[in-house]
Formats: sequence, structure tokens, C-alpha cells
Amino acid sequence: MNVDWLDMMTTPAALVDLDRVDANLKRVAMYTRQHGLRWRPHTKTHKTPEFAALQLAAGAQGVTVATVREAEVMATVCDDILLAYPPVGDDRLTRLMALPPHVRLTVALDSGEALEMLSRAARRAGRTVGVLVELDLGMRRVGVQSPEDAVALARAVTSSSGLEYRGITFYAGHLRMPQAELGDAMREQSVRLATYVDTLADAGLRPKTVSGGSTPTLWRSHEVAGLTEIRPGINIFNDRNAVSVGACPWEECAYSVLATVVSTTVPGQAVIDAGSKALAKEEGFTDTGVYGALLDRPDVLVRGLSEEHGLLDLSSTDWRPRVGDRVRVVPNHACASVNLHDRLHLLRQSTWAGTHAITARGW
Amino acid sequence: MNVDWLDMMTTPAALVDLDRVDANLKRVAMYTRQHGLRWRPHTKTHKTPEFAALQLAAGAQGVTVATVREAEVMATVCDDILLAYPPVGDDRLTRLMALPPHVRLTVALDSGEALEMLSRAARRAGRTVGVLVELDLGMRRVGVQSPEDAVALARAVTSSSGLEYRGITFYAGHLRMPQAELGDAMREQSVRLATYVDTLADAGLRPKTVSGGSTPTLWRSHEVAGLTEIRPGINIFNDRNAVSVGACPWEECAYSVLATVVSTTVPGQAVIDAGSKALAKEEGFTDTGVYGALLDRPDVLVRGLSEEHGLLDLSSTDWRPRVGDRVRVVPNHACASVNLHDRLHLLRQSTWAGTHAITARGW
Repeated sequence: MNVDWLDMMTTPAALVDLDRVDANLKRVAMYTRQHGLRWRPHTKTHKTPEFAALQLAAGAQGVTVATVREAEVMATVCDDILLAYPPVGDDRLTRLMALPPHVRLTVALDSGEALEMLSRAARRAGRTVGVLVELDLGMRRVGVQSPEDAVALARAVTSSSGLEYRGITFYAGHLRMPQAELGDAMREQSVRLATYVDTLADAGLRPKTVSGGSTPTLWRSHEVAGLTEIRPGINIFNDRNAVSVGACPWEECAYSVLATVVSTTVPGQAVIDAGSKALAKEEGFTDTGVYGALLDRPDVLVRGLSEEHGLLDLSSTDWRPRVGDRVRVVPNHACASVNLHDRLHLLRQSTWAGTHAITARGW
Repeated sequence: MNVDWLDMMTTPAALVDLDRVDANLKRVAMYTRQHGLRWRPHTKTHKTPEFAALQLAAGAQGVTVATVREAEVMATVCDDILLAYPPVGDDRLTRLMALPPHVRLTVALDSGEALEMLSRAARRAGRTVGVLVELDLGMRRVGVQSPEDAVALARAVTSSSGLEYRGITFYAGHLRMPQAELGDAMREQSVRLATYVDTLADAGLRPKTVSGGSTPTLWRSHEVAGLTEIRPGINIFNDRNAVSVGACPWEECAYSVLATVVSTTVPGQAVIDAGSKALAKEEGFTDTGVYGALLDRPDVLVRGLSEEHGLLDLSSTDWRPRVGDRVRVVPNHACASVNLHDRLHLLRQSTWAGTHAITARGW
């Protein structure tokens, strides 16, 4: 580590280890090639066009976005974008239709209302927009609730001008258990998915694209029969939650927040200047009351967070940091932490290698 | 409500009801005048110089900040600033000393290391910086742990060039219970505080300033013997947590997030486009698994949050929103939500009245 440089930075600061990012991308590129899956990473994790460009260079065939702002920013580096979010609201639709015409746009939706709004906007813009029908395979957030509803919506897409039916999509964000416990859940998901695919096929609406995937289920995606595309987000950086479910080892965490120790008066703890406004107060997948851990000392946990204070629990270590010392924290949820920063500081071979502005924040 | 305007905005959007802000400020100004307390609101809630200026116009005698960035921004409207945060780190100190020379600067600290760093920086800048010794009265976050430590640190301040001993400060952020249950905790706090004040006085270090106060304890500040100044932050906007402990009625909530209903497929719920990246995922003071409630229907709770999705629980209402409908959500914690937005949209008499950029975010 280039200590001089790390000592001079304003803290808290968001750091990305580019060597680890390269390795993380290579790994998923190899996996998807091996299993004949398309790779459409979700850019909500980094919200940074430079990292989307890296993903495309590593083999991604397009990107996923959740917001129009992300679509606008990613359109500067990518011409194949999936908006995995219901395109509801005039402002959302107007800006979506104003994306550069060469962008192949696909939108996920789950309602007749969203369909009609999108069709009207596409017609008005003289644009063809692809549609994936969103399924609920158990997360209970968005998505049609039955194969019959999927058929009805897919059929409505095929008969709507300006729209093109491209398949189905789902997000299994509720599968957040250790890899060893994933088997049953993945099999159940496969069975539910097959019912949808078969019912659609029987209706003459066989989906060309079947899009799914998350970071916790990433390496078992090939077990989901019929899946054609995956959309992992966090995997580029990884985080404490990804490690906790065995989606990666600790050494593959590429994102951390540099922080300064500002107080050590309370016995058994040290206070750092990375609080909920730098790390994000997100509970862990497999524990509660812990919000992160030190990159170089994973046994030292962040046990409390207020806005500008993080409390390091020193009960399991003899290490006693001093006021002014600097540490790097891996937060539970990288996406939520990145979203709190203006820029990502880049490390290459442990040396400062520039910054990327996080330009796709907001809406 | 000016429906046309609210229908046209990009959602999610942060809204502030200026009429309610005025009333909230008037109320605390009257309370502090009545009880002879100085009022130094914490600007971390709004991070917006225009709102600091409103607070000063309403009678605040100065402002409180947690970060150097907040100090830099608030210095454009205020010449009496308390940095209620240990000033540790070269960058922090360099920028602090570069604040306009007419700004009367006071800093809270709890360690010899922070003291030495600040003294050295003040000397180098040819500046006199006030110091409040930070006490831990039970929160166990920062602050000296005994009256003897307070005396030692206060004495060190008086003998450090560039520094001026101005008193003591504490933050009782752990007192987050309903008003009716606050009595014992406030009395215990008073007793502990008195021990500090008496021990300091015996050592010839009687504190001129005794600074405390939070929004949950705001209206009981006069019960704390010896308190000279309070620093409530949230009170200008209020939030669901403030209501939950009885610090204000629901009708005094001035901050909300405008959101659009984007999906209603899952029975008993509606999904809005305000998720953890708009509302902040902060547990309630008095309940768990709830992250906010609708401004106009407080019985409709936000029961789940992912990054761009909020789940409205419709189990306690007959109301069934449609895709495209708009709602306003009061989050649990206003400070954390405001920090996720670029600007605050202002309402006056329910009509759009401009925007303020939230310029003091980041560090």
C-alpha cells in the first residue's frame, strides 16, 4: 500500500482495487462463456460508465440499469441496455425515448398500465422498444403472479405497436443463503420457471430471452434450466454480504472505504469517520448489528453506525489503533455505499491510479 | 396540493413544506428564548445553506456541523460555527483553518492527540480556535470517560497556544424513548453532567458553554441543570422517528419523498419508486421492519426497501393505489434521506416554490 498517498486523502473515501476488479470480471466472463450464458451486468453497483466499459471489454454483451439516469449515462458507452424497472411516469418515458436512437432498448414490465404507457411513448417517438415480461418467482416484489398472467401480458406486447416481445425476466433477490443451502431453492426456482416457459411456449410465445441472476446465486446460474442471460451487479466489487453467502472469498472484495480513527476513549472500541453516510446502514445477510469489517483485519467488525461515526469492535483482537490511524472498511452492501460517494478512487498494484466520477447517481 | 406540478416531477423527489419549516423554527426559537438557552441547530439534517440562513433569521445564534464540507458551506451564511466532531487528520485541519477568518470557530474534541493536532494547525494558521471538551454521558460513542479526564483535557487546552477553552459538550443520542419515559434518563443525565461541571469548577475550569440537546430530548432541555446551548438537527424537518418518540405530531413533518406507484401485482402491497437510495434504510426508534409511512395516510407503512423499490403495506387500509399514482413518504430518518438527494423541492401553500441544492453533502 502506498502509505503516503493514503495518509493524504480526505476521509472517508471510496476505493476500488482495479486488479481485483479485473480478476472478478475475468472470472464471470469465463463462467458465462463456459455455460453459454449471456452476461448483462447490473450497473447500479458502480453507477460509473468507465466500469461499464470495463465490463463490456471483458465480454459483457450489454448492461442492465434500474433508473433512467443510469440508462442515460450508460448509453455513452453501451448500445444494448435493459431497463430492469417498470417504466412508469411521463418523465421516465420521455427521457427513455430520448436515448440515442442506436441504443437497443429493452424494458422489463409487469402491468397493462406500464405496457400502455410504454407503447404510447414508443409510437410517439417512432421507436421500437423490446419488452421482457417480469415474473415473480418468489421474491414478492414485482412481477406477474401466474403463467396465465404472463401469457396475457406477452400477448398484449405482441399486439402493441412500438413494442417487441423479447422474453421474460425475474430477480431472485430473496435467495440470500450460503451456497450449500442454495440447492433446494434453485431447484424450486427452476421448476417454477419451467412452468412459465412451457405455458408461454404452448401459447406460441416461447421466450427467446430468459433473464435472471444475482451475485449470491451467480455461480449456480447454470443449474437454472432455460436461463439465457444473467445480470449480477455486486460481483464486480463484491462486499461483506457476498462473502457471507460464499459467493466469493474475502480476497475478492475490490471495494472499500478508507477511514480515519477519530476517537478511542470508550474501552474496547475505536471510532472511525466512516458512518452511515459513507458505508450505508444495511444489515448483513447472515447477521444483524454488523455493518462491515476491516479489509486487512476481517475479524474487526463495524458494530455501530451513526451518520459520521463507525464503531469498530475491538473485543476479538489485541490490535489497538491510535487516533489518526487509517483503516479500510468493506461494507455489507457495496451498491448502497458507492451511492453515497461522489467519486471512486482507483488503486492499481496498491498505488493510486486516478478517480472515476460516479455520474449515474440520482434519477 | 398543486397536482399538475407534482404529476410532472421526476420521482423520487425530496420535498420540503416551507410553511411547516417556518412553524417548526418558530416553535424552537420560542422555547429556547423562554428557557434562556442558546440555539445552535445541527445543519447535517438539511446540508443546505439556505436552511441554515432561515434558522439564523429565526433566532439561532450559530450553527453546528459534523464535517469540514458542512463548515465550508455554512461559512457562507454563518460566522459562528461549532464543529461537533474530532478534528483528526491533516486534510480536515488544513481546510478547517482555511475557513474565512471572521468565522468564530469552535471544535469539540476528546483526546490529547486531537488537541495537539488542532493546536499545531491553529498556531500555523495564526488563528484562535475555541475548544469544547466532549463528554460521554452514556451514549458510548465519543467523549472523555470521567470528570478527571475532562479536567486533564480542559487544562491541556488552556495551556495550548492557538486554542481557547470554551466549555463542554455532549450528545445524548441514545435517549430515543417516548417523552413519557424520558424523565428518569434526563435526571440521570443531569446528575452526571453536574459531576463534570462541579469537578471542572473546583479545578478553576468552570465551563462557560455547556452544549447538548437532540430532537428527541428537545422539549425537555430545560430540565438539564446547567445546560446553556442546544443543537437539535432533525427538528427543522422532523421525521417518523421524531413522531414515534413524541417529539412532534405527524402534522409537523415538513420533509417527504414524492414517489410513483410502479407495480401492484403482489396482493396486499404496492411498489413505489422510492427505495433505500431515496428514503435510506434506517430502522425505526420504536419498531423494526418499517422504513416510513405515507404523509397523507400514516397508517400505510413502507415495510420493505430495496435500492429502487419501496413496498407499501396495504393490509391496514381499503385504499388501493393504481400504477402511476403518486404518494408522499415520510422516512424514519430525514437526515439520511436528504443526504441521498441532489436538491430539495420547496412547497409554499402546497405550491412549488423553487429548489435548494443540497450543497454540503460529501466531505
